[in-house]
Amino acid sequence: MIKEVKAWILSIGNEILIGRITNTNASWLSKRLTFLGVKVTRIITVPDEIDDIVEEIKRGLDKADLIITTGGLGPTYDDKTIEAVAKALNKELILNSIAFDMIKKKFEIANLPMTKEREKMAYLPEGGIPLKNSVGTAPGLFLETNNKIIISLPGVPKEMEAIFEEEVINRISKILPPISVVECGFKLVGVPESSIAPILEQIDKKFSNLYIKSHPKGIEVSNPILEIKVLASDNDKSEAKKKAESALEIVKEEAKKLNGKISEEYC
Amino acid sequence: MIKEVKAWILSIGNEILIGRITNTNASWLSKRLTFLGVKVTRIITVPDEIDDIVEEIKRGLDKADLIITTGGLGPTYDDKTIEAVAKALNKELILNSIAFDMIKKKFEIANLPMTKEREKMAYLPEGGIPLKNSVGTAPGLFLETNNKIIISLPGVPKEMEAIFEEEVINRISKILPPISVVECGFKLVGVPESSIAPILEQIDKKFSNLYIKSHPKGIEVSNPILEIKVLASDNDKSEAKKKAESALEIVKEEAKKLNGKISEEYC
Repeated sequence: MIKEVKAWILSIGNEILIGRITNTNASWLSKRLTFLGVKVTRIITVPDEIDDIVEEIKRGLDKADLIITTGGLGPTYDDKTIEAVAKALNKELILNSIAFDMIKKKFEIANLPMTKEREKMAYLPEGGIPLKNSVGTAPGLFLETNNKIIISLPGVPKEMEAIFEEEVINRISKILPPISVVECGFKLVGVPESSIAPILEQIDKKFSNLYIKSHPKGIEVSNPILEIKVLASDNDKSEAKKKAESALEIVKEEAKKLNGKISEEYC
Repeated sequence: MIKEVKAWILSIGNEILIGRITNTNASWLSKRLTFLGVKVTRIITVPDEIDDIVEEIKRGLDKADLIITTGGLGPTYDDKTIEAVAKALNKELILNSIAFDMIKKKFEIANLPMTKEREKMAYLPEGGIPLKNSVGTAPGLFLETNNKIIISLPGVPKEMEAIFEEEVINRISKILPPISVVECGFKLVGVPESSIAPILEQIDKKFSNLYIKSHPKGIEVSNPILEIKVLASDNDKSEAKKKAESALEIVKEEAKKLNGKISEEYC
């Protein structure tokens, strides 16, 4: 039997606890982790308070293999995540020169100098690796300790997602279960993206561990060309393939009704 | 100083942990509780497993005054919330005759008999009070123990919200801080609801502890009549009133631009 990889998601931020923000970061991450074969066993939202964050990180280190935090990485006084990670792991906060350069470059482009607040984002716990933020300024954090991995990502969804895709997946792949991911798709000509969108949404709801996307390549109304792409994962490769094909079959049926033409199929 | 009332929200359900559902129940509840002067200090999503639910309920009883769970109240085998509440409190599960009648009535309307699965929803921990579910079938649970309150609500948002508004607020009012809630509003003629909607959304984001809603009373395009209603809360009554008035001021300005007519103002 394959060893289960358990993850905890810690969402840090009072704005979630007062109901100003719905925690879409957690649902995005849990969907993405599930797809990668990881079992998410807790999603916990904590206030912007060191003691609360430390408490939940410690519990997570005890119960999970992987902890991903979101939020609290910025330059302001209430961004306390990194300090809390260091405290939970009993590690010193050190100015990381790679992180420093990443941040400096970001602000140089905007002709802004480094300040104490900006420098704050370059401090990482000992042994921490900064994760490049291609969208925003605060680098993420990757840290391995006692066979556990802790990752801190920003709270801004676009930044969080970019760092996860570009910097996290490759770093956690070694602990991921040997799951099979299959990609299938086709080109669809003659159907506007907005006409096929409800069907993709239905498929997304119907299947677990399946991603379906349409990429518009033509002109929406006058000359619609779409690339339909589906990714399916499963312990068993043929099951993953079957799932991907079933999903595409639904799209094909709908496309036929709308007089769309399918070509360049692959799986 | 007013004693702080702390609440934990426990969201129960694997469908959240695999990212199939975004936890909008938690954001709705935390907004509503914040408005009532309660401080939400954790939102925790747990799997549909007795041990996990028990663990977090026990922690919650230790750290908060109020625990609200959502999800896991239905008739199926994976609905384990009530059993977990009983276990966490070391109480017996007892067939509650009021709950039984509530459920029986619901199914009688649909000409359906009571079954073992339906009867399951009538078992509550000793001392538990069933909360009437005006939308669905499973009653909620209200339980007071050692100066703590634990409330279990269904996972279906419409049911959860209805029980909270109709059955929960009056029961928790005795532990709520003496917060002032002010209601102000006016009638707006000549502006379609869809034109004013973005402004209401902006206001919702701008102010904390403030609810703004439009109730359409006319015909959207040909004869739009809206009731605009705002609820604001604060420790201080005049502050709450000020906040409500500021919010309505923004609506008024926008209404003027759109040639709307305001009447029947109250505050």
